Amino acid sequence: MSLSEVNSFSRPQNPSPRSDEILDMIRPTFAGKGFDGASMQDLARAAGMSVGNFYRYFPSKAAIVEAIVMRDMAHIEQDFSEVILAPAPLSELRLKLSQRLNDPNCAQDGVLWAEISAAALRKPEVAQIVAQMETMVLSYLLTVFVRVTGLQDVEVARKYAPHAGLILMLVRGNAIQKAQETALGHNHKTYGLTALIERQIQSTLDEISNVSDKN
Amino acid sequence: MSLSEVNSFSRPQNPSPRSDEILDMIRPTFAGKGFDGASMQDLARAAGMSVGNFYRYFPSKAAIVEAIVMRDMAHIEQDFSEVILAPAPLSELRLKLSQRLNDPNCAQDGVLWAEISAAALRKPEVAQIVAQMETMVLSYLLTVFVRVTGLQDVEVARKYAPHAGLILMLVRGNAIQKAQETALGHNHKTYGLTALIERQIQSTLDEISNVSDKN
Repeated sequence: MSLSEVNSFSRPQNPSPRSDEILDMIRPTFAGKGFDGASMQDLARAAGMSVGNFYRYFPSKAAIVEAIVMRDMAHIEQDFSEVILAPAPLSELRLKLSQRLNDPNCAQDGVLWAEISAAALRKPEVAQIVAQMETMVLSYLLTVFVRVTGLQDVEVARKYAPHAGLILMLVRGNAIQKAQETALGHNHKTYGLTALIERQIQSTLDEISNVSDKN
Repeated sequence: MSLSEVNSFSRPQNPSPRSDEILDMIRPTFAGKGFDGASMQDLARAAGMSVGNFYRYFPSKAAIVEAIVMRDMAHIEQDFSEVILAPAPLSELRLKLSQRLNDPNCAQDGVLWAEISAAALRKPEVAQIVAQMETMVLSYLLTVFVRVTGLQDVEVARKYAPHAGLILMLVRGNAIQKAQETALGHNHKTYGLTALIERQIQSTLDEISNVSDKN
């Protein structure tokens, strides 16, 4: 995975506020019935639109997944631009990851992520969207690592792409775990897993900061 | 999560060889179309049976998930009984986890796990099955940790339940990641993530073996 791949990521131009509003309206139906369980009729109804009109905004379910992913990406981009511009980028990254792990809303993201991950394994068009999104997040992380270590892009990608992948997996695993706890209700005890995940992420980042100390 | 909860896990008695054979026949359809996308008609057809006859084996899709999970659990139980009886249980656990992470078949498990995890967040009956299975795996891990550290059950559960949960998350995350790489084809490079996941699991287990050295 090379840093330049981030540039091959085709981002839709300025999604309209109306599409955004529709996404908010259909999100619970999409998460509740699943990619295959929710029909375009169900989704149009949730958006309060005729099926014909709904298709003008979202021609397919893959288009809906893409819109959901793009919206998440906009937030992630915002976070990373703050990290990269910060005086101490690695400390800022540690802080942002900690906030995300402990965000009570991450259970909702977990439901959608579990759904999108499963759909990606059945639908090549969804797999492409997810892969592009992951490539982009990994590239952002590697950009931070380049900034922090002072090493060359290629060297950082070769050595630390697995570190970036592990961090992404742990953040997503944490969200899906919280979603599962929410689904099971209050009888299911949380047992300190988030704290240990955070410790693992921090120790993974320590390997990057150790390189930086040596340079 | 207490160790005794493992006993509350209701295991179906000796699933028939015929059910086992049906599971093998429907597994690709179930994984390919998804929990909601595969109808009971699709599944009966995949098994070469009439719908009426199929319902006698599996009265619902949740029953199919349960049967898949129970079959996986039988393998997991076998592995853990070997670990617990081994002269050096922690070394044996490290070895078995390493084999599982690097097993080429784990991509197939990843597809089913992604599907079952997503379905669990929409269907309470699936959530219960997944939670019981996780409780059982965590209890087995904690039993190994008790054996290794010489600490009391309650102490081990309090201190090391997060470690067990993290290991389960990493093993599952690795399988789902491999499934995703398979879905994307050979253009998608693997980049050493499994090796880093293995290192993280081993260092998580080091915390247990360090306790054991002190006792």
